Amino acid sequence: MTAPAILLHTPQLGENIGAAARAMLNFGLTDLRLITPRDGWPNPAAEPMSAGAFEAGVEARVFDSLEAASEGLTRLYATTARPRGMEKPVMGPQAAADEARDLPGQAGILFGGEHSGLPNEAVAVADVILTYPVNPAFASLNLAQAVLVFAQGWGAAMELEGRAGVQRGVGDLADRGDLMRMLEHFEVELERAGYFFPPEKTALMKDNLRAALIRANWTEQEVRTFRGAIKALAEGRGKARVKRD
Amino acid sequence: MTAPAILLHTPQLGENIGAAARAMLNFGLTDLRLITPRDGWPNPAAEPMSAGAFEAGVEARVFDSLEAASEGLTRLYATTARPRGMEKPVMGPQAAADEARDLPGQAGILFGGEHSGLPNEAVAVADVILTYPVNPAFASLNLAQAVLVFAQGWGAAMELEGRAGVQRGVGDLADRGDLMRMLEHFEVELERAGYFFPPEKTALMKDNLRAALIRANWTEQEVRTFRGAIKALAEGRGKARVKRD
Repeated sequence: MTAPAILLHTPQLGENIGAAARAMLNFGLTDLRLITPRDGWPNPAAEPMSAGAFEAGVEARVFDSLEAASEGLTRLYATTARPRGMEKPVMGPQAAADEARDLPGQAGILFGGEHSGLPNEAVAVADVILTYPVNPAFASLNLAQAVLVFAQGWGAAMELEGRAGVQRGVGDLADRGDLMRMLEHFEVELERAGYFFPPEKTALMKDNLRAALIRANWTEQEVRTFRGAIKALAEGRGKARVKRD
Repeated sequence: MTAPAILLHTPQLGENIGAAARAMLNFGLTDLRLITPRDGWPNPAAEPMSAGAFEAGVEARVFDSLEAASEGLTRLYATTARPRGMEKPVMGPQAAADEARDLPGQAGILFGGEHSGLPNEAVAVADVILTYPVNPAFASLNLAQAVLVFAQGWGAAMELEGRAGVQRGVGDLADRGDLMRMLEHFEVELERAGYFFPPEKTALMKDNLRAALIRANWTEQEVRTFRGAIKALAEGRGKARVKRD
């Protein structure tokens, strides 16, 4: 059990990054990953809203993609209010925090930027959709408030650890970086094979594919196996084509 | 089941009142009671931070005492991080929200002002101490964040209502106003009887007494009965004194 990482996808205001760090550290979260923050990092606007959280333990790191920010994580939860039409498990903050606590490895909790939330392609590669039981007539949480709601779930999960901490009988879950590379490998080969047609539907087809594959909760061994399968198919197709020529 | 009221005890900044209202309405809470707000009410500083919560459903009312603000409530939860040395049940936000949902009548969730939190005499009259599982090395939630943590618990409690809503078999719980008057009646008579001695310990003695009495979860009938008992004791003592004279 490692405390989850908080991933902010293209956050805009430094103030909100600071307030998110404050919310995190109140409940013992310290791993903050910023994916392409609009105003760069470090950002002086973050400091006053952080209440000293960066000095007291929160470590913020910047990444240029979700893939890069996912290195070392074994399960990804995408926080979203809008339904996405993707078939994925949906959890509330407490269930997600409880599961993250019992996970082998480290979970990542992904939040979208202030204005547009998470892009579909980010949700597509998440294992779980994390939603909050908000009032449908007034769903108006800001970024730091959304982080706080998960963080308090984590605090509650840790408080109850002694009582409820049951280790799940899963193998070594794959590193998210390896998993992303597996999906990309798959898509590159599908592209070469002319699978993505017509072109305007490529993004949607990829998202649906990723959403389906990701549900498998891949172990390290399974990722290696699947990559071997892709490679074999791609090479086999090449061979077949050579034969036909 | 009525959605709980949020009571802010001597809040200072209008911004925080507005942000608290926003946090409330996200999870369906609309009854906001302001006890002696420092800058009065209405306060124009509240509006920008409310994200429209006052127009969309939150009703804020001002009271000049905790007693007045407690009218119509049947159970009071005091949110506090510091231990108070009072023997009271202690709950986390989810347990409190679940209980509030199943309560006959309406719960009140009491939060202290920005700088000093709740005074001891306010905690003393609460039924339950509500604490959050915060990081002891960085306990730094602002007022609106504290309200949000309870509010999300309420949202989760309502979401699960169909599954977990078990009505408790209690009688009609006393109105908090009646309960406060009962305690004051008791203290007035104790004062007259010279019970509070030495004078510098009066506040502490009252707090301890209130803390003990309040744990009884008084029903309406029991409050009437107890007031009758105080009256009888007081009049009896008067009679006895007359006789001794």
